Amino acid sequence: MIKLFALTFNNFELLDLFGPLEMFGCLKNQISINLISESGKEVQSYQGPTILSDSSLELSPHPDIFLIPGGIGTRKEVDNEELIRYIQKVANKSKYVATICTGTALLAKTNLLNGFNATTNKNAFEWVAGQNNKVNWIRKARWVEDGKYFTSSGVSAGIDMSLALIEKIFGSKVSENVCNHTEYIWNKDKNFDPFYKK
Amino acid sequence: MIKLFALTFNNFELLDLFGPLEMFGCLKNQISINLISESGKEVQSYQGPTILSDSSLELSPHPDIFLIPGGIGTRKEVDNEELIRYIQKVANKSKYVATICTGTALLAKTNLLNGFNATTNKNAFEWVAGQNNKVNWIRKARWVEDGKYFTSSGVSAGIDMSLALIEKIFGSKVSENVCNHTEYIWNKDKNFDPFYKK
Repeated sequence: MIKLFALTFNNFELLDLFGPLEMFGCLKNQISINLISESGKEVQSYQGPTILSDSSLELSPHPDIFLIPGGIGTRKEVDNEELIRYIQKVANKSKYVATICTGTALLAKTNLLNGFNATTNKNAFEWVAGQNNKVNWIRKARWVEDGKYFTSSGVSAGIDMSLALIEKIFGSKVSENVCNHTEYIWNKDKNFDPFYKK
Repeated sequence: MIKLFALTFNNFELLDLFGPLEMFGCLKNQISINLISESGKEVQSYQGPTILSDSSLELSPHPDIFLIPGGIGTRKEVDNEELIRYIQKVANKSKYVATICTGTALLAKTNLLNGFNATTNKNAFEWVAGQNNKVNWIRKARWVEDGKYFTSSGVSAGIDMSLALIEKIFGSKVSENVCNHTEYIWNKDKNFDPFYKK
């Protein structure tokens, strides 16, 4: 069983989390999903809906996949030292770390991305890149894979990246099956980025 | 303020609900979102994550938009007579009714779609169409608009449909802004359906 742990926090972006979890969750017989938050209880998205997390930061998992969504809540959480230390600890033990949108800012704050290629939301690029200038920020990319780190552009790009990670772990037949089940028109080319701004 | 009410039930498909709610939720200053369920409490998605609904079936809203997601849970709920009566009552009072994936089966059971064009998930088409043969089922469509009814193909198609409804209500500048914010590559052509099966 592949163990996926996803970080959640108030004012996370709804689709940053649930786009990827739809794709991974289609493989629920092969992937277990656990949502982590500071309280271990309710977490409210920026768009409004509230979810229930499964575990608090007392959990110390060894994930196969550690998922970090973005959203306006990251503006506050980049300064949450306890949370950043937790992310560093869990990301260090993870086989793959996948960030969506401004979730990349939280990972960048741990310094684990230093020297790695990474990307983020096109509408918040300067803010995210400003969190850590030792990351090699890639401006034009739907998503970037470098070592164990997968980082995506804004919101919907996280779905394309998740399918690439599914393909890497399970092969292309499985990723195609997930697309077919979800009727998702997959942008498979990580360098095709219609939202790139010069 | 546009009032959006979304139906939820156990084993709903995660992206059926949260794809559209991401898009509508980007306009949170203009659209209010309320999640309805039988219990008015926790609802678990098929993919695993649990959400908190806002209201029970005791609420009798007059929605501008009534959203009905699909998912494997619809196989049970099509036989839930109390729920179908509730859907009929609310849909009757709604300005627009938007169903995603097999959510169309629940609306079809109310008989409100009789004589209307509608579509649904391509992998469950026969089962949904079998719920009501008085609906004019359209096999090849990303989504269908007929009167106040918007019905979409499987899962991800609900996002394309929601953007079309946003365009109808708020205009194309607003729908384009939502795409830009979410870095979503919108399939704007409702007749482009790569998942159509002959």
